[in-house]
Amino acid sequence: MSIPALQFARENQSRFLEELKDLLRIPSVSTLPEHRGDVRRAAEVLALELQRIGLENVQLIETTGHPLVYADWLHAAGKPTCLCYGHYDVQPPDPLDEWASPPFEPTERNGNLYARGAVDDKGQMYMHVKALESLLHAHAGKLPLNVRVILEGEEEVGGEGIAQFVREHPEQLRADFALISDTEMFAPDLPTLCVGLRGMIYTEIEARGAATDLHSGMYGGAAPNPFFALCQVLAQLKDADGRISIPGFYDAITAPSTQELKAWKSLPFNEEEFQHKEVGSSALTGESKYSVLERLWARPTLEVHGMPGGFTGAGAKTVIPAKALAKVSMRLVPEMEPQKIFALYKRYVESLCPKGIMLDVRLIHSGDPIVLRVDNPYVQAATAAMRDVFGKETVFVRSGGSIPIVGDFERSLKIPSVMMGFGLPDDNLHAPNEKFHIANFYRGIESLIRFFERLGAEKIGAA
Amino acid sequence: MSIPALQFARENQSRFLEELKDLLRIPSVSTLPEHRGDVRRAAEVLALELQRIGLENVQLIETTGHPLVYADWLHAAGKPTCLCYGHYDVQPPDPLDEWASPPFEPTERNGNLYARGAVDDKGQMYMHVKALESLLHAHAGKLPLNVRVILEGEEEVGGEGIAQFVREHPEQLRADFALISDTEMFAPDLPTLCVGLRGMIYTEIEARGAATDLHSGMYGGAAPNPFFALCQVLAQLKDADGRISIPGFYDAITAPSTQELKAWKSLPFNEEEFQHKEVGSSALTGESKYSVLERLWARPTLEVHGMPGGFTGAGAKTVIPAKALAKVSMRLVPEMEPQKIFALYKRYVESLCPKGIMLDVRLIHSGDPIVLRVDNPYVQAATAAMRDVFGKETVFVRSGGSIPIVGDFERSLKIPSVMMGFGLPDDNLHAPNEKFHIANFYRGIESLIRFFERLGAEKIGAA
Repeated sequence: MSIPALQFARENQSRFLEELKDLLRIPSVSTLPEHRGDVRRAAEVLALELQRIGLENVQLIETTGHPLVYADWLHAAGKPTCLCYGHYDVQPPDPLDEWASPPFEPTERNGNLYARGAVDDKGQMYMHVKALESLLHAHAGKLPLNVRVILEGEEEVGGEGIAQFVREHPEQLRADFALISDTEMFAPDLPTLCVGLRGMIYTEIEARGAATDLHSGMYGGAAPNPFFALCQVLAQLKDADGRISIPGFYDAITAPSTQELKAWKSLPFNEEEFQHKEVGSSALTGESKYSVLERLWARPTLEVHGMPGGFTGAGAKTVIPAKALAKVSMRLVPEMEPQKIFALYKRYVESLCPKGIMLDVRLIHSGDPIVLRVDNPYVQAATAAMRDVFGKETVFVRSGGSIPIVGDFERSLKIPSVMMGFGLPDDNLHAPNEKFHIANFYRGIESLIRFFERLGAEKIGAA
Repeated sequence: MSIPALQFARENQSRFLEELKDLLRIPSVSTLPEHRGDVRRAAEVLALELQRIGLENVQLIETTGHPLVYADWLHAAGKPTCLCYGHYDVQPPDPLDEWASPPFEPTERNGNLYARGAVDDKGQMYMHVKALESLLHAHAGKLPLNVRVILEGEEEVGGEGIAQFVREHPEQLRADFALISDTEMFAPDLPTLCVGLRGMIYTEIEARGAATDLHSGMYGGAAPNPFFALCQVLAQLKDADGRISIPGFYDAITAPSTQELKAWKSLPFNEEEFQHKEVGSSALTGESKYSVLERLWARPTLEVHGMPGGFTGAGAKTVIPAKALAKVSMRLVPEMEPQKIFALYKRYVESLCPKGIMLDVRLIHSGDPIVLRVDNPYVQAATAAMRDVFGKETVFVRSGGSIPIVGDFERSLKIPSVMMGFGLPDDNLHAPNEKFHIANFYRGIESLIRFFERLGAEKIGAA
């Protein structure tokens, strides 16, 4: 099959990569107020590019937070409509001193492109843009199917902007399915579709003791210590085997099917290698009666991300801080409901409150757990497109991560999502030295071109 | 009794206060490397002032850290020699946003002087300087007794500079007793001598899990979490009643005498008021079978000061950090030995190490607990001098804080210390809005003048 769009994409690989680097140079860190202007700049750059390649109705949609970028092309009558989703915001780069090259100076090393956002999600989102450009160029300004593009700038901060827009304007995003490239391949060269995601609740616990910071010599032994209190509380949330102690926490869980569990067993997964090469710890942890993949994909977890407050500088300061904070999240699996789980968690945490301490338990954001059906034409076309590019059968996996938008699309637009991701397990998402394997950037673009061509050749759905 | 030095001190009160303000404007924060130059500047300013008032042999003595300031006047043959000790470094001012006025812009409000270091210890140390100035002026360049002054700039950082100097050059500091003003009065208007101090060990526990920061979605449930591990460990160091769980921890403790306990019971102490006005928490904590004063003065404590690492910014970052740190100190009481206690603590913490985690337990610094005899002429003269200024009998108390130099003087110079302090319980040491009651600055100077005059009138010891 001669596909002119593939030809165009191959001839323009190095330009595509340079354009991605320009995008990665914009520090669009959505969690940090000081980068507000950078986040908007990234949105503007993308809007201009969507306009340039020939999409229509390009616009920034303002939200209470960072803007959405929208564009469409809806002239393929009788063809399905794809809603391409991506996010242009990135995680904070800290700790900065652990980066081998600066996070916002994209650097090529060993076939990889290193930068914050390289794979999560600027690089993967940009594959959509470049696949669409290749198709528009090869088809004289037309696409083989209808496309809407929606990009958000608050994914990493759990912003409500896109969820609200999806809820309030479902007609503006009407489509047959969504396409999301924000997941990873199970192994290098193994084409992978993600069909399940953990949900999450991200919370803060604030502990307050004395009215002001106190000297630990003068008051130690009689004044409450909020850090010690948080330690007492947090230590009671999980047992030594990683089982979460919140009453009722596990009640709603649906286990994966026997068939799915069997398929996971046949994946090329080596626990030793995972421990030593990916995690790099002296042991793996968690519920020992489940396999590692079950623990990551089909079991909930509770993590402490940081405990701000008190004295964190060099040397010694003998303070009993007036307050301390813990940032705690839980990953949820089907059919756990975020609001219900938060209520159970809050009640349990409050029940553990030590003497002299006041606890404030806050929900920062949440997302539903998801399991997708694999018997729809979009997943089938994606399976075939990736197989054609990689020359191997595509595998179905779940991800332990959370993509709340998938639940929003399901709830408000009543459409399934195809999660076609090209990250690799060692791409250091949310960590120093985030990277994107450059070959996967190109193979991703080719997979997307083949996917769109396939769907355009079929007759399913309607715009 | 007409005392010309008192007259001079009274006439110069406002000048003394303005000079103190100038000293407080220097941010001599010894724990922060960026203030290194400021710490030295404070030392230089003090050396110049000691020279100006008429002391001799003024010099900066270099250490591996911040310099010592030395001066003396040794011409009162047949009179005792006093070693005046103080420190010119201060605690870090954070959290800055809780200060009503900037920490390094001394501000008068309601009869108090607000600034970092106002009472701990620049203000109290400067009382010595101004008492000596008043005496030198009133006695035509002479003092009623021999004096050596030694000031350090590493008290708040637990620096070893002065301890090493005391150990290696005891002859340069030869004296009959030391005088330290770095403690507080038990209540406003109640003259107080401190005759006991808790010791301390300040430690760090570093927990390491994965080789790099990991995404909590991708790895949560199988990767070790160093923050959670620290919580598990720390929660096991004390029980709910505040009793420390380290095996052997309490073995060496000597309880206060029945007489001392009885004297503490007659002090004007109101537990309700202490809780609500000083601590401001919903309850007091600690070992319920001991009184609050016993818990603060005669029982050890263990405190967590901060837990640096991970994500501490605004919003949500879903990271499992590769490492986390806990800053933990213990206050010790007679006869607990810091090195032995640290060994017990380290062994116990290591025994609690969770799966997949590596712990590094480090001693940052330590100080011996102290109990002083009250039947020496120096304590007697101090008792009388303070009684004369305040018009009330002087009480003997202990402090829950630690002044390691008292142990160093005892061990290396074989001299007792007189701890004549003029701070107040609500002076916010080590906390935002540190202050010094200005009337106590003046009464402190007068007490010191009377103390020196009394000792000069007696015939005890020899230079």
